[in-house]
Amino acid sequence: MFEKVLIANRGEIALRVLRACRELGVRTVVVHSSADADSLPVRMADETVRIGPAPSRQSYLNAAAIVEAARQTGAQAVHPGYGFLSEDADFAEICAENGLVFIGPPPQVMSALADKSTARALMSRAGLPLPPGSVRTLPTVAEALEVAAEVGYPVIVKAAAGGGGRGMTVVRSAGALPRAYARTRAAAQVAFGDDRVYVERYLTDARHVEVQVLCDGHGNGVHLGTRDCSVQRRHQKLVEEAPAPGLSVATLATLAETALRGALSVGFTGAGTVEFLVDEAERCHFLEINCRIQVEHPVTEMVTGVDLVHEQLHIAAGVPLRLRQEEIRLHGVSVECRVNVEDPDRDFAPAPGRLERFRPPGGPFTRVDTHGHPGYLVSPHYDSLLAKVAVWAPDRASALDRLERALGEFDIAGPGVRTTIPFVRRVLDDAAFRKAGHTTGLVDRLLADRAPTGAPVPAPAAPAAAANQPGTSVRRTR
Amino acid sequence: MFEKVLIANRGEIALRVLRACRELGVRTVVVHSSADADSLPVRMADETVRIGPAPSRQSYLNAAAIVEAARQTGAQAVHPGYGFLSEDADFAEICAENGLVFIGPPPQVMSALADKSTARALMSRAGLPLPPGSVRTLPTVAEALEVAAEVGYPVIVKAAAGGGGRGMTVVRSAGALPRAYARTRAAAQVAFGDDRVYVERYLTDARHVEVQVLCDGHGNGVHLGTRDCSVQRRHQKLVEEAPAPGLSVATLATLAETALRGALSVGFTGAGTVEFLVDEAERCHFLEINCRIQVEHPVTEMVTGVDLVHEQLHIAAGVPLRLRQEEIRLHGVSVECRVNVEDPDRDFAPAPGRLERFRPPGGPFTRVDTHGHPGYLVSPHYDSLLAKVAVWAPDRASALDRLERALGEFDIAGPGVRTTIPFVRRVLDDAAFRKAGHTTGLVDRLLADRAPTGAPVPAPAAPAAAANQPGTSVRRTR
Repeated sequence: MFEKVLIANRGEIALRVLRACRELGVRTVVVHSSADADSLPVRMADETVRIGPAPSRQSYLNAAAIVEAARQTGAQAVHPGYGFLSEDADFAEICAENGLVFIGPPPQVMSALADKSTARALMSRAGLPLPPGSVRTLPTVAEALEVAAEVGYPVIVKAAAGGGGRGMTVVRSAGALPRAYARTRAAAQVAFGDDRVYVERYLTDARHVEVQVLCDGHGNGVHLGTRDCSVQRRHQKLVEEAPAPGLSVATLATLAETALRGALSVGFTGAGTVEFLVDEAERCHFLEINCRIQVEHPVTEMVTGVDLVHEQLHIAAGVPLRLRQEEIRLHGVSVECRVNVEDPDRDFAPAPGRLERFRPPGGPFTRVDTHGHPGYLVSPHYDSLLAKVAVWAPDRASALDRLERALGEFDIAGPGVRTTIPFVRRVLDDAAFRKAGHTTGLVDRLLADRAPTGAPVPAPAAPAAAANQPGTSVRRTR
Repeated sequence: MFEKVLIANRGEIALRVLRACRELGVRTVVVHSSADADSLPVRMADETVRIGPAPSRQSYLNAAAIVEAARQTGAQAVHPGYGFLSEDADFAEICAENGLVFIGPPPQVMSALADKSTARALMSRAGLPLPPGSVRTLPTVAEALEVAAEVGYPVIVKAAAGGGGRGMTVVRSAGALPRAYARTRAAAQVAFGDDRVYVERYLTDARHVEVQVLCDGHGNGVHLGTRDCSVQRRHQKLVEEAPAPGLSVATLATLAETALRGALSVGFTGAGTVEFLVDEAERCHFLEINCRIQVEHPVTEMVTGVDLVHEQLHIAAGVPLRLRQEEIRLHGVSVECRVNVEDPDRDFAPAPGRLERFRPPGGPFTRVDTHGHPGYLVSPHYDSLLAKVAVWAPDRASALDRLERALGEFDIAGPGVRTTIPFVRRVLDDAAFRKAGHTTGLVDRLLADRAPTGAPVPAPAAPAAAANQPGTSVRRTR
């Protein structure tokens, strides 16, 4: 195992990785921006290096500064978390050139999978079913129109270099395609420096289901079951669960085996996620492979008992996979929701500020991952994810009841601070969601018939009036 | 299921019961003393009733006020938690007379088991092995000397009405017996209003192992495996784990089956714990049966996935046991430690005060049960338990590493406030404990070669110096 690992991230995932390192006796170096100098991961790290000012380009995306910090501190490996440089093949390459282990797949695998068009071709070759559409990119609008006519509308125009919900446009008719095609190409050029696009059938009423895999550098791999992430707003996940509900055992098994086959076929190593859309007829369509730990990884950990970050570290250190497929068994159901500092009543606009109060839930079968604390200043510079709450229960209905209980305990307040908790509670209350009959259209439906979600943040009841007489006056708070 | 349950307790266990109620859709009434008017359970309850001033006799032990609070609020059942009235058969009787369901065994069962001498006789009849000693109580010192000579010294003189570590004296020689006998009787008279005592062989180098059972009112019962609670200071548990380590599979199975047989033989219902001492030769000796949820119940929950408080509520509501023995499987290892507001360097004297900072650990496989929060005033009126931290891992070594990690994250500080965390960390570091070779003598051994445990509370590192230059200066904090 490594002696020292540099954590090139911030927020809850930096803390998550730090916890895994500490449990394995690995010293930690946390690099940080000026804005995060007083953050929990920085306070808790063994060593810290300030690598630049608040804007990410100058700090968390500053490969040179991160490599220099590793050199200075003698770190042997870099854990990139998710986001930032976690799927940047160039950064992985730079790490290798500087004698640092990048905790993720080899750069050439990352680079192949980052190109969605290449990934589609590779997975198709490995026998994974693709959504109807073009395998290759489409350099002219005429070709795009041809593919769209073939697969039928609605279609989705996707940037080959996109990912994580960015660089996609849904098109409902041939008349709208030329404009969407041009716009997606232009946006992709700006965002990714690469304007190649392809066209796929847009599957409505589908579910977003993904499979967690772990592969070592010795050709071994295992899958750890499925996650459903259909509760999305603009392709950003809000609620995730494991295993994916409402699918047949056969479909779940097919998804898991197919995903592992696909990952192994390209020499994938580390922790990865193979994403699919599953339609009403339970037909599965490959979407993409993510080369990093996912935000929603805790739900898989809770149903398998496997610490995915421990496994990432072992794999990166060259240890052969410590798990065998037959030893991985799924128990019960885990559901997680994200607590973002956003205002659900103002189109989920960021609502950062200083947290005057911050008390997360606790108790049985409840896991909280957060870098929040009383007094924490939520910075407008970064992603709005403040906390993740994941619960476990023997069955889905109990898990949802438990998650509602846990969310009700959250006490977050500060001037201007709003969170997605009230909106998530509406999701949990939704009849279709309750019976696992929802699709990726759920959030849009809820937003369409939305009413304001009410109070800014779930505030605890006021303290009992001290004037209460023993045994005579009763306070009713709910 | 009940519509409304009154919680006749405080602190973390009141919160624990409240969480279970909420998850099951049961409304909660939390009764409280004046000192607890602003406590978390009171803030979070659906309804609250102040039942008296701070001293427990006038509030948490005030049966009449509690029953009146239930009448006023229309609560159908009373959950007593642990301690206070949880093992008071008279209170259970009063509840029944007032049409309230007492969440625990029938009063006559509680009453029989509360008398240790009767409990010994009943369990002996059910075939449970007793420690060498007297089954009946010993009204004269001559009889006590006779039994002691028969079983051999050291012996322990125990009050029949004692329990929970109170009313016991260890005697190492015949010369010391008369005085110890007289003192134990006198103390028992004061504490319990009952001076009957009996004598048992005092087993040194033994382990304290207990079995969790659940029995319904229809004659069904299951066991949920073992817990080791050998890490005790003056019979108060500090660290607990499930399953009990270092014992053969056969011994573990025998303990579990024996315990369940004993509980069923007396018509036990609800959640109970059958306690044993297990000697070096793995011989098992029955100690007592507890009629309540135990402080250490989370470790059983973490290895079984069963929510014990949910089950208590269902059983009390008359629902037949929802678990079958063959469905209860143990996974991995869970270890819990108690965080008491005590000073380990001053003989564990209470060290209460206001918590200026309070941030519990979080993250993977880590459960915290606590009523603490920033600004909380730890009252000198009550038990010093502030928090319980329980972790889970696939194996014991990983669980201990995880617990050390979690304890290291705890941030508790306030004027005069000290906690048992530094002492618990010494336990976790102990070589004998690490290899599960410890006995109930562990804490005394650690205290004998004690050095002061160091800093008052584990404080987080200071924030990084703002003057650090990007990429050039490195802060080393540990």
